[in-house]
Amino acid sequence: MKARVHVFLKEGVLDPQGKAVASALRTLGFEEVAAVRQGKFFDLETGPLPAGEAEARLQEYCRKLLANPVIENFRVEILEP
Amino acid sequence: MKARVHVFLKEGVLDPQGKAVASALRTLGFEEVAAVRQGKFFDLETGPLPAGEAEARLQEYCRKLLANPVIENFRVEILEP
Repeated sequence: MKARVHVFLKEGVLDPQGKAVASALRTLGFEEVAAVRQGKFFDLETGPLPAGEAEARLQEYCRKLLANPVIENFRVEILEP
Repeated sequence: MKARVHVFLKEGVLDPQGKAVASALRTLGFEEVAAVRQGKFFDLETGPLPAGEAEARLQEYCRKLLANPVIENFRVEILEP
């Protein structure tokens, strides 16, 4: 299976990296930039998984390792079963 | 405009973070995990931009700040004009 997982800060959680990027873009002359939020993503390849189970398994990866559930949300996406 | 930019290591560039994540997932018992590559993404909000210009402008953000062209590629996506 090939899958992509996006992990991003929850709404309302301060994102200092994003703020720094927005401010750097404005300093470079891109004054139209209003806000930036930064997140990360993971492209995963796994061996075969039972059909109905892939999405649940990806969510387990997120809860156990990829995301910090206190401040982050995640979204999983199966690219190739 | 709302846009999303993905920045990821070029094919063939070593991704130690991704390797560490893959190995950690396997250690947690997810032995089906074969490979992981990690990237980052930016959600941007900007003031209005001339219609045909938005994508070129996003690519400029990438070339000037968001991506390291030596080792990274990027993909831009306009979510809301």
